[in-house]
Amino acid sequence: MPSPAVTPKGAATRAFLLQIAAEVFAERGYAETTMAQLIERSGLTKGAFYFHFSSKEQLALAVIDEKQRQWIDSVLQAISAEPCAFDRLRAVALALVNVHRDPSAFSVSRLTRDLVRVPGVSDVVRDHMSTWLGLVAGLIREAQADGDLPETVDADDLAAVLVAATDGLKDLGALIDRPSRARRAYERRMNTLVRLVDSFSSRE
Amino acid sequence: MPSPAVTPKGAATRAFLLQIAAEVFAERGYAETTMAQLIERSGLTKGAFYFHFSSKEQLALAVIDEKQRQWIDSVLQAISAEPCAFDRLRAVALALVNVHRDPSAFSVSRLTRDLVRVPGVSDVVRDHMSTWLGLVAGLIREAQADGDLPETVDADDLAAVLVAATDGLKDLGALIDRPSRARRAYERRMNTLVRLVDSFSSRE
Repeated sequence: MPSPAVTPKGAATRAFLLQIAAEVFAERGYAETTMAQLIERSGLTKGAFYFHFSSKEQLALAVIDEKQRQWIDSVLQAISAEPCAFDRLRAVALALVNVHRDPSAFSVSRLTRDLVRVPGVSDVVRDHMSTWLGLVAGLIREAQADGDLPETVDADDLAAVLVAATDGLKDLGALIDRPSRARRAYERRMNTLVRLVDSFSSRE
Repeated sequence: MPSPAVTPKGAATRAFLLQIAAEVFAERGYAETTMAQLIERSGLTKGAFYFHFSSKEQLALAVIDEKQRQWIDSVLQAISAEPCAFDRLRAVALALVNVHRDPSAFSVSRLTRDLVRVPGVSDVVRDHMSTWLGLVAGLIREAQADGDLPETVDADDLAAVLVAATDGLKDLGALIDRPSRARRAYERRMNTLVRLVDSFSSRE
């Protein structure tokens, strides 16, 4: 028997359930959400629902995985147009700002934070983190080779600072910003981060 | 009747319980810790323990509050020696690195993260965050007035980036670093953040 996601109908139902789950987790928080609520919202029978996802944790993990895949795809696409590595590095930040025009991007980040201590989840989150760090560090090394960033900085350390600031700004915003202003504030702060990186560049 | 913390013996017991609680939360995680375990580790009777702290949440909140007070105190003391605002701004980052020589600093950050969604706690965490943001933004404004940082950057946005990176680096390290290397890695990355701020400065 093929796995449920392999058939076209299965894949569509799975995508629908991920969307429902992202919304319900965003509204109620992960801890407060029950499988019964998710099943009710989906309109599926319990059996049909469990055919796709057998636990709340598995579903949350799939939401995080799917969103991260989408984000990496949009960022890679956005930066591919830039001919030079330093511009691709800047474009990563600006593409991430665009990704966060989708309100669910903030709630998936919060879901990730809520789940990061769950053993199976932390491995997945660590893999995503490594993907981002690898992407950013690779661009920094290329920009260094091009003479656009100082050779004296460690590319992995600078990548860690940039990725940490990008994630940290979402947590900070969730704490101090009114929801209606969070997106604009994130955008302004990300632009400020880009200005810091610009000032670090040896380019004119 | 005076509150338990007001008498000298009460204050000493309270400080002892905060230390115990910080250790147990660090070892087991907040969610997995029970009041019974905390009471057992303290060696106090249940009645004596509850005289000081009536719930796990109240105790965790007191741990976070106490540590934040200590961190702000050490940072303010460390920067007071610097005559100019830009150097005080740099000194904040270096003082925070020193604060994290105490291993419990990382676990209190993790405790804060675990608890940030609890209603009573998020207000307290928001207050601490505002204190740090206010301190850093104030130094940025002074450095701008001194001509050491560009006037064209918004002080609150730059403060948000620096505070978010500082916090984000702890979360990132908890995920990707081996515990034995976490402190050194945090120090290297914080120094990289300081280099970014240096490059932004108009000073020679």
